[in-house]
Amino acid sequence: MPRPGAPPALAAPEEDELYEFDYFYHEPGAVPGTLRIDADALPPTIVLIDYCETKASRSTIHEPEECIPYLDSASVSWVDVKGLGSEETLQRLGRVFSLHPLVLEDVVNVPQRPKVEEYQNQILLIARMVTLKPSGEGFCSEQVSLILGPHYLLTVQEEPEYDAFDPVRERIRTNKGTIRTHQVDYLAYALLDSIIDGFFPVLEVYGEQLEALEDEVVMNPSRKTLEKIYQMRRELLSLRRAIWPQRDAINSLIRDENPLISAEVRVYLRDCYDHAIQVLDMVETYRELASSLMDVYLSSVGNKMNEIMKLLTVISTIFIPLTFIAGVYGMNFNPDASPLNMPELNWYWGYPVCWTLMLTLASSLVGFFWRRGWFENFSASKND
Amino acid sequence: MPRPGAPPALAAPEEDELYEFDYFYHEPGAVPGTLRIDADALPPTIVLIDYCETKASRSTIHEPEECIPYLDSASVSWVDVKGLGSEETLQRLGRVFSLHPLVLEDVVNVPQRPKVEEYQNQILLIARMVTLKPSGEGFCSEQVSLILGPHYLLTVQEEPEYDAFDPVRERIRTNKGTIRTHQVDYLAYALLDSIIDGFFPVLEVYGEQLEALEDEVVMNPSRKTLEKIYQMRRELLSLRRAIWPQRDAINSLIRDENPLISAEVRVYLRDCYDHAIQVLDMVETYRELASSLMDVYLSSVGNKMNEIMKLLTVISTIFIPLTFIAGVYGMNFNPDASPLNMPELNWYWGYPVCWTLMLTLASSLVGFFWRRGWFENFSASKND
Amino acid sequence: MPRPGAPPALAAPEEDELYEFDYFYHEPGAVPGTLRIDADALPPTIVLIDYCETKASRSTIHEPEECIPYLDSASVSWVDVKGLGSEETLQRLGRVFSLHPLVLEDVVNVPQRPKVEEYQNQILLIARMVTLKPSGEGFCSEQVSLILGPHYLLTVQEEPEYDAFDPVRERIRTNKGTIRTHQVDYLAYALLDSIIDGFFPVLEVYGEQLEALEDEVVMNPSRKTLEKIYQMRRELLSLRRAIWPQRDAINSLIRDENPLISAEVRVYLRDCYDHAIQVLDMVETYRELASSLMDVYLSSVGNKMNEIMKLLTVISTIFIPLTFIAGVYGMNFNPDASPLNMPELNWYWGYPVCWTLMLTLASSLVGFFWRRGWFENFSASKND
Amino acid sequence: MPRPGAPPALAAPEEDELYEFDYFYHEPGAVPGTLRIDADALPPTIVLIDYCETKASRSTIHEPEECIPYLDSASVSWVDVKGLGSEETLQRLGRVFSLHPLVLEDVVNVPQRPKVEEYQNQILLIARMVTLKPSGEGFCSEQVSLILGPHYLLTVQEEPEYDAFDPVRERIRTNKGTIRTHQVDYLAYALLDSIIDGFFPVLEVYGEQLEALEDEVVMNPSRKTLEKIYQMRRELLSLRRAIWPQRDAINSLIRDENPLISAEVRVYLRDCYDHAIQVLDMVETYRELASSLMDVYLSSVGNKMNEIMKLLTVISTIFIPLTFIAGVYGMNFNPDASPLNMPELNWYWGYPVCWTLMLTLASSLVGFFWRRGWFENFSASKND
Amino acid sequence: MPRPGAPPALAAPEEDELYEFDYFYHEPGAVPGTLRIDADALPPTIVLIDYCETKASRSTIHEPEECIPYLDSASVSWVDVKGLGSEETLQRLGRVFSLHPLVLEDVVNVPQRPKVEEYQNQILLIARMVTLKPSGEGFCSEQVSLILGPHYLLTVQEEPEYDAFDPVRERIRTNKGTIRTHQVDYLAYALLDSIIDGFFPVLEVYGEQLEALEDEVVMNPSRKTLEKIYQMRRELLSLRRAIWPQRDAINSLIRDENPLISAEVRVYLRDCYDHAIQVLDMVETYRELASSLMDVYLSSVGNKMNEIMKLLTVISTIFIPLTFIAGVYGMNFNPDASPLNMPELNWYWGYPVCWTLMLTLASSLVGFFWRRGWFENFSASKND
Repeated sequence: MPRPGAPPALAAPEEDELYEFDYFYHEPGAVPGTLRIDADALPPTIVLIDYCETKASRSTIHEPEECIPYLDSASVSWVDVKGLGSEETLQRLGRVFSLHPLVLEDVVNVPQRPKVEEYQNQILLIARMVTLKPSGEGFCSEQVSLILGPHYLLTVQEEPEYDAFDPVRERIRTNKGTIRTHQVDYLAYALLDSIIDGFFPVLEVYGEQLEALEDEVVMNPSRKTLEKIYQMRRELLSLRRAIWPQRDAINSLIRDENPLISAEVRVYLRDCYDHAIQVLDMVETYRELASSLMDVYLSSVGNKMNEIMKLLTVISTIFIPLTFIAGVYGMNFNPDASPLNMPELNWYWGYPVCWTLMLTLASSLVGFFWRRGWFENFSASKND
Repeated sequence: MPRPGAPPALAAPEEDELYEFDYFYHEPGAVPGTLRIDADALPPTIVLIDYCETKASRSTIHEPEECIPYLDSASVSWVDVKGLGSEETLQRLGRVFSLHPLVLEDVVNVPQRPKVEEYQNQILLIARMVTLKPSGEGFCSEQVSLILGPHYLLTVQEEPEYDAFDPVRERIRTNKGTIRTHQVDYLAYALLDSIIDGFFPVLEVYGEQLEALEDEVVMNPSRKTLEKIYQMRRELLSLRRAIWPQRDAINSLIRDENPLISAEVRVYLRDCYDHAIQVLDMVETYRELASSLMDVYLSSVGNKMNEIMKLLTVISTIFIPLTFIAGVYGMNFNPDASPLNMPELNWYWGYPVCWTLMLTLASSLVGFFWRRGWFENFSASKND
Repeated sequence: MPRPGAPPALAAPEEDELYEFDYFYHEPGAVPGTLRIDADALPPTIVLIDYCETKASRSTIHEPEECIPYLDSASVSWVDVKGLGSEETLQRLGRVFSLHPLVLEDVVNVPQRPKVEEYQNQILLIARMVTLKPSGEGFCSEQVSLILGPHYLLTVQEEPEYDAFDPVRERIRTNKGTIRTHQVDYLAYALLDSIIDGFFPVLEVYGEQLEALEDEVVMNPSRKTLEKIYQMRRELLSLRRAIWPQRDAINSLIRDENPLISAEVRVYLRDCYDHAIQVLDMVETYRELASSLMDVYLSSVGNKMNEIMKLLTVISTIFIPLTFIAGVYGMNFNPDASPLNMPELNWYWGYPVCWTLMLTLASSLVGFFWRRGWFENFSASKND
Repeated sequence: MPRPGAPPALAAPEEDELYEFDYFYHEPGAVPGTLRIDADALPPTIVLIDYCETKASRSTIHEPEECIPYLDSASVSWVDVKGLGSEETLQRLGRVFSLHPLVLEDVVNVPQRPKVEEYQNQILLIARMVTLKPSGEGFCSEQVSLILGPHYLLTVQEEPEYDAFDPVRERIRTNKGTIRTHQVDYLAYALLDSIIDGFFPVLEVYGEQLEALEDEVVMNPSRKTLEKIYQMRRELLSLRRAIWPQRDAINSLIRDENPLISAEVRVYLRDCYDHAIQVLDMVETYRELASSLMDVYLSSVGNKMNEIMKLLTVISTIFIPLTFIAGVYGMNFNPDASPLNMPELNWYWGYPVCWTLMLTLASSLVGFFWRRGWFENFSASKND
Repeated sequence: MPRPGAPPALAAPEEDELYEFDYFYHEPGAVPGTLRIDADALPPTIVLIDYCETKASRSTIHEPEECIPYLDSASVSWVDVKGLGSEETLQRLGRVFSLHPLVLEDVVNVPQRPKVEEYQNQILLIARMVTLKPSGEGFCSEQVSLILGPHYLLTVQEEPEYDAFDPVRERIRTNKGTIRTHQVDYLAYALLDSIIDGFFPVLEVYGEQLEALEDEVVMNPSRKTLEKIYQMRRELLSLRRAIWPQRDAINSLIRDENPLISAEVRVYLRDCYDHAIQVLDMVETYRELASSLMDVYLSSVGNKMNEIMKLLTVISTIFIPLTFIAGVYGMNFNPDASPLNMPELNWYWGYPVCWTLMLTLASSLVGFFWRRGWFENFSASKND
């Protein structure tokens, strides 16, 4: 539903026009709870995984209302919705799970800032999941919303193609680890842990890029290097914006003694919180390094200029006086008009003496630069 | 009323002289509660909207005292005052609504820093509303003061032309959403939400400008770019000053359990607070990016200089020695005076050998620069 | 009293030698409460203003002991001391008002850092009052100490010439506003409010200077500009040091529920606190802008260099090859010695061909620079 | 055990590929408690030291289960495990000491961020131990995990070769100091103290390097200097990341009144905390100095450029006009064609006058530069 | 006693090798409480000052045990130890005053970070005392440890030559001020106050140096200036490290209601705390100014370069075209071979026209630079 009542002056921005750092916003003054469905979003697919210690089942749901019987059953029910392309389905889901209108709004109108909010009998957790782009350059991120109830977990994902949850599904299916012996709060932890741990491979790539940039900026700094450093700073800023509020959110999950989360799972969440802090720590370290690299780049540019100028100065300083001498003896004062007029031109040793003079001058200048170490530096940089 | 008792040395500043970042101040030592009416401010227009679940009415008020019957009625009464041009009307409004003199002062003497203050039976909220300029360059901002009482809401706006509240008025009139089923605290929330959401379209424009600047600063940095970056930093600073205290104000509304605001509306205010944080988050991100861009700009200037210097050095280094050689053979040492005087001039192959010498020297210098990669860089930058 | 026991190596600094950012200090190890009277300080003048709701009187006091009858009377007694030039009078004042030795020390040994301190039955408030210099360049500041007792207020000012309190005196005399209906705590608020509001006109001047500098730094940056920016940063730092602790002081006045300050006046102090925050907010904004301006200045210097280098490069690159060509045909190879020796010199079209060659070379170089846009930039900057 | 279920796109990183600033992470979605054994890690060696006030014994353990009898004995038992090369041994150790799966994970999957975590009857302390590389360049760091129980201390170290605990072992063996009179909490303190004090020799080396760099950056700044400063900033950042969380960990040990740590040992831990703060203080100071050095380096580069440019300008400015004069009298205007054509060439004093002119010009230019102090600076810098 | 058990790889650093910013550390793993006596430290001299309201005595102590009778007497006993050169004496002192081993360690193993620690019946205060070097360049600092007991104060100073306590001793001897009417806590305050006030003269010198640097950096920036700014930043950093923890220490003395310190002295300590804040405030201000000065220096270097480049460009731009013209008419095309070959050479007005051309060109270029204001700037900077 497009925004009603928008003043014509402000054209509704196209989804793809959104700048990378923008959060979603609805039209000022719009009814709270208004959903905005992106035209090219895919229709939601709903998968229900229901398990207890002894068995686990997986089924695809077509009508949201099919979930109702599972909500109050003692077994753990995980309803996984992928894709935000149908307002009607999402509204029905909202009714099935008795979601507050503001919850539904936050789930559907992406991107939102990660956060935790407690409602009666439910906890809403907005998380951000990052994955490396297949090209290896940069990462893409999508919003995952978790709504935790007494016996069910509803997850809503922005993109249908990929998620980081397959290992968890596998653990449920094959009963690996202890996941099937725990309640739904452990499932929420397991998914959240997958999301947080998904930051590490992304950061690892940035670590490698930083190492490469460190070499490049000293060895062979070019305008490309500058763009790469800036790009890295932007992306690290973006990662920081994703992980920072998530750390806070997990912390408030641990601290607020909500009965939906057992003490045992709280211990696991503490581990998850540790990982979030490690991610943040790495992001901050990388940001600091990238910022130092900018300083080094600036100095390298200055150093390069120094070398260029040295070359120019050496060449000019050596040849300008020589050229002057040659110019002097190219003057046409008439030796016939006066014995004082350029008698050197008629001397027997005139020309050799002139060359001797010039070579002496040149070699003493070369020696001067040599002693000041200009050539050392110069040849040193030739090896780069 | 101009400020009495002002020492003549300090002329009262004209409204239009105020620097963009100045807050209002009254003459040191003035009686607290003194109002200052700007000469070219338009006289206030007062509109009363009164509604309950079943009906809604809208009327224009001419005398402030007409509001009195509505103040204690069970229905929700929204008195909307636009324009600050008449001290007498404002003073009468103050009496009708029993405003503390300091409240009236903050409402009338704009601009003030956004804040929340609790008085007996009233909450004063000073907010700042931003809107894009029609030209799309920069934004303009005005102060909106909300005074929330048990059954009424008084809003006072600086500028009469425009506000962001039309969608809310429409929702009241057409009974869209649930606004008419709520009390006056929900109305205050709805208006505040419109104000906060009004920051997003402004920020979106800055996001686009940042993207354009990112290209410009690498591709074609000029003095204009520098001015644009500085201008952006200034305006983002200005936005930050507007949103930061507003976030604090909303937070204290949520935290302080004032009986004028119901628990239900507090949930909505929490959503509004989230939006304020998102706005602040975007502003801070943009500020950081703009500041990095300044670094990139500085490096680009350095890079450009490097290229200019390289060109000069290449040309000088190649031609200066050649010119010297030409100068040498332009000397007038007399070959007749001695066989040692420039015998080259009379050699059969003299001139061709001289050219060969010069071309060899030039091409070896070109080769030297080529191997050091100066031409690559140079031609690369030609494509920009 | 000069400092006893000072080692001779450290001559007692003359008052006028004090660096602008130094606080007062007495000789390490001196008896606490030691007063230091500056030799050229004027002797104190003492004015007593005594008022209640129905009447107000003003009298000049010659002996501090004359104040004693007023101290416990129900009316409000404001004892205003200007000038710190007599230790004896100040000591007697201290005895009359039962001041703690440390209070008297803080009052007399200026400058001190603004602060609030509570003693039994008294509150000491050290404030800093700024006023624009008549020349309009920079500001001067002096210390005002307020000692608030149950029915009296003692104020001590450093400089006798000027203070910001005349409007308050006028309000007491003419019974304007409600000041005469309040107790002595309201008087203290009124004076403090005058002091805080006195920062605004000073900041306004800095706002104007910043605006002027913004133009200057882009249009015509010179070494003067740099000095001005640095000077502004220094003075804003100085303002910040004055207002920051004052904000804290007012805050602790509001928070600590001292019985000397009534709840009603606390509401007014909250307003005063708001103003202090606004002042601080403006100072911080200006500091940030001044710091950005330094960046812009640095870039402008770099840009200017770029233009100078471009000019040099254009001229050199065009003329150096031409000069080389001219040099070649100035060589004296003997055409008679061999047909290979400079036959061009004897060609019919030799000279015109040479000019054609040179002009072609020059115009193609000009075209090269033209296409790279060097002339555009150059002529653009000519308009500045 | 390699990570199961990893998508093929992300090859499991080799241990040696890990970037210096990366923390360990396991595959997103992996079962919590999964251990990852590095292929080239050495198998663990286990040493048990058991002592009480009267006697001390030391034995090498081959099967983890051999420790069981010691765990509940009243004597202090220190089980020291070095090397992480066998998952089976580590799992058995975990069972012997009843370690929570998350504890075992943190102990085995290195590197982790230092932290303290309290479990029932156990405290887990992850610490980072730094030692200078034998080469003296940089330091290496390894993780030491301490698990403190009622009567035992389990320590697990990453590297088998070296640790900082020999002096403590010696104190136990020779009953030096009071260590044998204390309980196991004192042993944990003693080890932690060794770890923290191990930072000091490392920092001392950086202090010396900073001093050397300070000289180098002013005297003879080169590209090498830049790399060294950047390297130092990186390593100090790395040290800071090691000590910062350790300080927090010790602080929470002191603050949380865990019964496993006696009040007496808490006093010793306070001393240890002081040392951690001193380490942090030194690291921050060095970081700040290194960052200032970068500024100084940048200025030095600018200064060097200034000197190069001065030399070029002096040479060019002196010789270019002279060369022009020589060029003028090298022109071939025909004196025979007109008396106006270069009569100077035939003057009797022509050539000497020309030299006089040139020498006068040159010496006045030299004088000009001399008066502006260019030569002073120049010769001053020659002494460097 | 040298450190036992130190690995041979790490030679124990000589005292004089310690970098200025290093704290003391003992060998990792050493027994807590190990004392390290510097070989060239002077043996301690012990002076006992004992006083009550009516009398005061001063005696030199040779055996620490002589102090014992004074410890529990009602009079105030101040035991002042100067010099750390004898471990035996210090150990005996420790036994006499029942010092915890960690206290003795902190007192003897200097330098330590300033701090306050409370033990049973004792308060340990580690302070740092700064004094200007007699040369006036920089300051030296030494550690003063104060151990406050119920009726005694033990002070231990690093250096025997100088302390700031003479005025206090004088006040005790001559019964000046109220010091003899107070208990031992007041004595501790008086000494601490002397230490804090000792920072002011040092800071005053830095204030003067900053003022001098401000002039130098704009008027005549040289490499020396840069070194001075860096040196100042280092020393201010060092001062900040001394005063910052001392402020915290005093604050915790005031806040923690230790019975050893009476409420009355707490008021005096509050004053001392104020002074510490003022010192810190000044240090931070100076640091900020020094950091701004670095920016100004960088700009000045850039400005200087601009001027040098302008000179070069003016000279080159004027003379290069002239030299080209001269070169043209120095060509040897044979006028006899063709009428087109340099007919100018034979024109009657050839030479004068050539000069006219050159002078016109030169003067129009001079005019061009003049209009762009290059000469103004140039001559302006000549006055510096």
